[in-house]
Amino acid sequence: MSGAPGLGPQDIIRLVPGAVEMLDQTRLPAEEAVLRCGDWEAVVDAIRRLAIRGAPAIGVAGAMGVALAAESAAPRGPEAFAAELGRAVAGLRAARPTAVNLAWAVDAQAALAAATEGPPARVAEALAEGARRIHADEVARCRAIGGHGRALIGRGARVMTVCNAGALATGGYGTALGVVRAAHAADPSLRVVVPETRPLLQGSRLTAWELARDGIAHTLITDSMAATTMAAGAVTHVVVGADRIAANGDVANKIGTYGLAVLAREHGIPVIVAAPTTTLDPATPTGAGIPIEERAADEVRGLTLMGRPASAPDTPVANPAFDVTPARLVAAIVTERGVHRPPYERSLPRPEAPGA
Amino acid sequence: MSGAPGLGPQDIIRLVPGAVEMLDQTRLPAEEAVLRCGDWEAVVDAIRRLAIRGAPAIGVAGAMGVALAAESAAPRGPEAFAAELGRAVAGLRAARPTAVNLAWAVDAQAALAAATEGPPARVAEALAEGARRIHADEVARCRAIGGHGRALIGRGARVMTVCNAGALATGGYGTALGVVRAAHAADPSLRVVVPETRPLLQGSRLTAWELARDGIAHTLITDSMAATTMAAGAVTHVVVGADRIAANGDVANKIGTYGLAVLAREHGIPVIVAAPTTTLDPATPTGAGIPIEERAADEVRGLTLMGRPASAPDTPVANPAFDVTPARLVAAIVTERGVHRPPYERSLPRPEAPGA
Repeated sequence: MSGAPGLGPQDIIRLVPGAVEMLDQTRLPAEEAVLRCGDWEAVVDAIRRLAIRGAPAIGVAGAMGVALAAESAAPRGPEAFAAELGRAVAGLRAARPTAVNLAWAVDAQAALAAATEGPPARVAEALAEGARRIHADEVARCRAIGGHGRALIGRGARVMTVCNAGALATGGYGTALGVVRAAHAADPSLRVVVPETRPLLQGSRLTAWELARDGIAHTLITDSMAATTMAAGAVTHVVVGADRIAANGDVANKIGTYGLAVLAREHGIPVIVAAPTTTLDPATPTGAGIPIEERAADEVRGLTLMGRPASAPDTPVANPAFDVTPARLVAAIVTERGVHRPPYERSLPRPEAPGA
Repeated sequence: MSGAPGLGPQDIIRLVPGAVEMLDQTRLPAEEAVLRCGDWEAVVDAIRRLAIRGAPAIGVAGAMGVALAAESAAPRGPEAFAAELGRAVAGLRAARPTAVNLAWAVDAQAALAAATEGPPARVAEALAEGARRIHADEVARCRAIGGHGRALIGRGARVMTVCNAGALATGGYGTALGVVRAAHAADPSLRVVVPETRPLLQGSRLTAWELARDGIAHTLITDSMAATTMAAGAVTHVVVGADRIAANGDVANKIGTYGLAVLAREHGIPVIVAAPTTTLDPATPTGAGIPIEERAADEVRGLTLMGRPASAPDTPVANPAFDVTPARLVAAIVTERGVHRPPYERSLPRPEAPGA
């Protein structure tokens, strides 16, 4: 880790010679520290412990990890190169199970390697270009999502989001926060309600930080305050990102999203899902087929409140990181291709094949 | 503060000569420390900072605070005694606004003082007896609530509660946890799902501690996991306490209760409210008339997650401590008088008048 400058909310990850550098999201908002991953295994570790998180962003990190593995293995000759690349692809692809973007981006890199002729150094170069292109494409997709999504948000909007589907989650601009940014540019009176998003507090740590940086008015609440905030009329739209969207429009996203969607319907508030087509998974028919990552118990138990531990260390805990919101609760899915309405089986676009 | 022994989950507060002693709930679960309040102002402070909390329990604390004020002012002569008692009644009554039990118990003591003839020392003695009677009555009410509520809980129940409506909240046995305790005695396979209850984590700190002490199986979740836990079929009943129940059956309770009630209805799960008649407020027609306490922003911002601050110190925050669940979402209200069903305007009993 170092204090190397240059990474911030608009540029959260980069591939440099010999490393993948990223803003260490576990240290926000108190510190803006750069984490330098010198090999692909360090990228896997960064993804696992959420130094970088968010479906599109871990796809970018995975693609850069493959490129980094290729760069370091290139001098070792074609066979060792191919073997190491295979290990990196398998290891990065498996770093986290729920978001489909990670597998998509790593597969895209594997396809690119297979399609590139020439010596390892040439393949490594192509993979570096490929990773940077995946990154640039994700940011461009976010900007397009913002443009499409803005049309759904009227003046005087009060947007509730969850977790962080911002620049930090995507590589730049954001999906849900991309819609917020675009809508705010058109109407600076827009406000955002930010549930803190337990267990890992991406709302309070990351989304509030991004919004403060951009001068967008916001109020932090605990997740338990969402219902009463809606009942008070303080929410006009719920706008969230996604980790994987099944063929029927069922949406896996941060734990708590499903509950917010039920509450939103109770209060007549539309739920808008903002995600790039790289998050679509047409091979999974419904949300029931999406694997839900169960994470460590101490993410729930490890809180300190006013200097005192909040749980006994042996309390039995459940900690699913995601939930599935059924398509019937989703008013619209916004991708870079436009605004898609139910029935999603027919309206969702086909994602590009990896490496297409 | 001292390590004086003898207070525990079945005996959380007591009036002793010169002091009110209570288990300091801000220190649980890590420490079982006794807080000694040497004057009524210290009792007010303990109530405000939640060293003791829960509607019936702060009523007991308020009653003991009045008795303590009377004991210490008794030697000063009738006029000074009356003046000090008036200050204590006003100060204790206003310590927290939402729970009606506090005002009820303090008013009961004031009425008792007015009705007691004789010198200050005699009045002080009567108030000490009055406080102990209020305490004993609250525990007896909880046991009766448990007995009535148990009938609503079948075998193999999976009860979700919120916050802590246990012995710690009531002076002994508990309201919602009284129902759980009684049902568990009949069916040891009963399990409890415990949402942590942000911001102040009474679920993880207090309810999990009580259940572990009693050997009742439980699983701690974050509040954001409630919906997916219900969708998975892991909840058969939602059983909660109350801070105030309006004449129409609207229920003010810990922030998050309203959201759980909406989610419960979505999943076909009955919501049962367990509360003594001292929590009924027939003078308030609907929940709209219940004052909702807004607490300090740092209760939301002041979290540390794995040693790191979870929010910027200047993030704008909302922090309502309670919400209101409309009566239409409540399947039954259980008091010490029995099980009451909608329409609650007609089925709820009249509470005893304070001092009756």
